[in-house]
Amino acid sequence: MSRTPSGAAVLRPEVTEAIAEAVLDELCEQGFGRLSMERVARRAGVGKSALYRRWPAKSAMVVDVLSRLSVPVGVPPDTGSLRGDLRAMLDAVVEWMTEPRLRRILPDLVAESARNPELAAASDEHIGKPRRQWAVPALERAVLRGELPARADREVLLDLLAAPVFWRLTTQGGLVTPDYLDQLADLLVRGVAAG
Amino acid sequence: MSRTPSGAAVLRPEVTEAIAEAVLDELCEQGFGRLSMERVARRAGVGKSALYRRWPAKSAMVVDVLSRLSVPVGVPPDTGSLRGDLRAMLDAVVEWMTEPRLRRILPDLVAESARNPELAAASDEHIGKPRRQWAVPALERAVLRGELPARADREVLLDLLAAPVFWRLTTQGGLVTPDYLDQLADLLVRGVAAG
Repeated sequence: MSRTPSGAAVLRPEVTEAIAEAVLDELCEQGFGRLSMERVARRAGVGKSALYRRWPAKSAMVVDVLSRLSVPVGVPPDTGSLRGDLRAMLDAVVEWMTEPRLRRILPDLVAESARNPELAAASDEHIGKPRRQWAVPALERAVLRGELPARADREVLLDLLAAPVFWRLTTQGGLVTPDYLDQLADLLVRGVAAG
Repeated sequence: MSRTPSGAAVLRPEVTEAIAEAVLDELCEQGFGRLSMERVARRAGVGKSALYRRWPAKSAMVVDVLSRLSVPVGVPPDTGSLRGDLRAMLDAVVEWMTEPRLRRILPDLVAESARNPELAAASDEHIGKPRRQWAVPALERAVLRGELPARADREVLLDLLAAPVFWRLTTQGGLVTPDYLDQLADLLVRGVAAG
């Protein structure tokens, strides 16, 4: 891609990609609080001006790069039962949350979002909402099979597919065993059945 | 308290208290990542040497101050039923996690613990374990009443008394309504009943 002699600068995608990788690496190692435009630029091997041509500020840069994380799991399998679907989704959530970079970035984002409403809104838009939407088809299949009352509020159940995994990974030494997920799936199936 | 002319310096408790308050305020406003000994000293109105006389490093200082947060809720009430006890404990967890300073510090601690094993161990010792121990008597009463199978693994249930509240406060815009807690308590009671 050649430079335009005047007007809006052409942003080379390979440079954008290198910067995005540097942002993710810096977020992993330093966290949002210690992330600086200067460190990112140095890591990406570009000048700070290359960053400012793309984003007006650190927050906007992080938010844009965030959209690359989104929900990196496939369509949840249709196992034929709510128990099977919940268990498969729990496995997928664990796989997603233990992806090496996300594992370090997600807790930091959660924490920083408490201080930064713009980041909170972007995290919800690019990570929270897609993750919740991802689980909805399995719940709709369960309603059709009569395993989940149609009137049941899904918010609690959607929370319980992610919150305990996050909690255990971050506060209980990272121990999420298959046995733990079995027990959680059993509890959830029983818990919603008569709801 | 007068100074000793030699040997171990006497550490004035009112100075320690002022520093601890400054640490908590800085953790709230800046987070662990941006916390510095210099900022804490300035805020407490003391010299940095006053900090280093007490703690060798930032991490040790934060860990020590952390023990002041612990579990600031009373003994969970004996309501006579597992449902009542779980609901009361959920209220207490919400009250604890929404205490203005803890609300800002806890997510940050969770995130920083992913990078800092010393901080993770201290958080678990001073916050995690006491919180879990705090809930155990209610579960033992439920076993005696036959509402909770004696053989039931309590780990999942103990997680579910805190994880969804934390998750909702930090990722869902802080919306934890009485109705949400009612539904969560109902789901948990049904979920463990046949376990």
